[in-house]
Amino acid sequence: MDGKAASEELVAALQVRVAALPFTPRLTFVRVGDDPASAYYVRSKERVARRVGVESETRVLPDGTTQDELLALVDELNRDPEVDGVLVQLPAPGVDELAVLEAIDPAKDVDGLHPLNVGRLWTGRPGPRPATPLGVAALADRYGVPLAGARAVVVGRSSLVGKPLAAMLLERDATVTLAHSRTLDLAALCREADVLVVAVGRPALVTREMVKPGAAVFDVGLSRVDGKVVGDVSPDVAEVAGWLTPMPGGTGLMTVAMVVANTVDAAVSRRGQGA
Amino acid sequence: MDGKAASEELVAALQVRVAALPFTPRLTFVRVGDDPASAYYVRSKERVARRVGVESETRVLPDGTTQDELLALVDELNRDPEVDGVLVQLPAPGVDELAVLEAIDPAKDVDGLHPLNVGRLWTGRPGPRPATPLGVAALADRYGVPLAGARAVVVGRSSLVGKPLAAMLLERDATVTLAHSRTLDLAALCREADVLVVAVGRPALVTREMVKPGAAVFDVGLSRVDGKVVGDVSPDVAEVAGWLTPMPGGTGLMTVAMVVANTVDAAVSRRGQGA
Repeated sequence: MDGKAASEELVAALQVRVAALPFTPRLTFVRVGDDPASAYYVRSKERVARRVGVESETRVLPDGTTQDELLALVDELNRDPEVDGVLVQLPAPGVDELAVLEAIDPAKDVDGLHPLNVGRLWTGRPGPRPATPLGVAALADRYGVPLAGARAVVVGRSSLVGKPLAAMLLERDATVTLAHSRTLDLAALCREADVLVVAVGRPALVTREMVKPGAAVFDVGLSRVDGKVVGDVSPDVAEVAGWLTPMPGGTGLMTVAMVVANTVDAAVSRRGQGA
Repeated sequence: MDGKAASEELVAALQVRVAALPFTPRLTFVRVGDDPASAYYVRSKERVARRVGVESETRVLPDGTTQDELLALVDELNRDPEVDGVLVQLPAPGVDELAVLEAIDPAKDVDGLHPLNVGRLWTGRPGPRPATPLGVAALADRYGVPLAGARAVVVGRSSLVGKPLAAMLLERDATVTLAHSRTLDLAALCREADVLVVAVGRPALVTREMVKPGAAVFDVGLSRVDGKVVGDVSPDVAEVAGWLTPMPGGTGLMTVAMVVANTVDAAVSRRGQGA
């Protein structure tokens, strides 16, 4: 499954959509300190935002920023009528991340991590969904991966990927299993999966022997080994999988595009289609 | 697993807790029309509330009550400082149930069904949890059913039982599968379960052949057959299960007690332990 092609299609569709709007959606990133990975992720999202016609800015707070200072900035952005999306790039060392996520106006929560938006997801209400699961679901749709009635196994139970993805696969009528570090016999469980999503961050966690022939495999984990980006799925899985996302060039590109898509949705909801 | 004994213990503990409070917690039920099942459920909860020392009242709205009328009552109860818990007994014919659940003050939501509280559950934040899953988890704890690392299969994906229970089993480190009406080969899936929870409402959906010897089986579904209350689990499952909840006398009694426990928690949170 080609995340580059799929994300380019999404970017093109967003360009058309944004061009027709009577306003320019605006996305503000907040990051704390000089973690190079955080800076890289924010830059990737800024680049796509710019291409789509979404204005973005990044507020960088120094290392040692307190919880209160971060919350004050979030509050300022919540109240700024020109800001459509607020994205605090985690980790933010020394602050209570749950408190920060909860402080973002749910209507500007383009990461879909505010508890109200998490609850909306799990109860089938409309609302922003986390970007990575959105990207996985879009790839499944684009490549015609059957989900209804399928056995789906999601490895990794994070709030960012595993849990929201379980909700979205369930919504599409898959029979969903959430596996994690305490799961016994992960290999046997994975072999039952028609749809296997791995979002752990451990290189080659899933090997060829753990994949049912013909299964759709989504590699979400990301690690750096000898300076090279690698996923959680061993390359030889390509020999048995029916569908596979490459790494890089797979789910990560979709995540970036989906953050921008969420911003456009948030802008339209808040300002109105013709505002 | 004896739901009667376990719920009596819970009631006794709540009596002690409430007796030590400097105020009387108050729970208000709202129901619409004269559905006999709804009336029965509310009466059961009122009875336990009274035994525990929680004051309760029931507001019965006539059949044909509009959405706006129901929302106006919820709003009145939200603003009444003497009311600690608001429970709208569903179904409420002709009204948008999601809108009603969302209108209840999250701090008074003793059913734990407000989307904010659902999101708190899925992100590990404190908050009220739905009563039936709480009851299942309490029975598992009381009887020493191992959950960490166990394969748990939850059949039924309702917002009331299946989905929140999946979150709570996951929190206890089980590997959790959510199955439902679109699941293929339910029998094979159930046979893998160390912990099997059935919450569908179809008599004898789970039979002896579908249960792994020694598994813990929780029967949550409830139907009436020839005037008799029956669960989703066939009685002969007792021959293979390691643990089993009877029906009646199992999970239902725990649900009722947990609604009252949630009310006491809500009262203490809102008024303060020593208010």
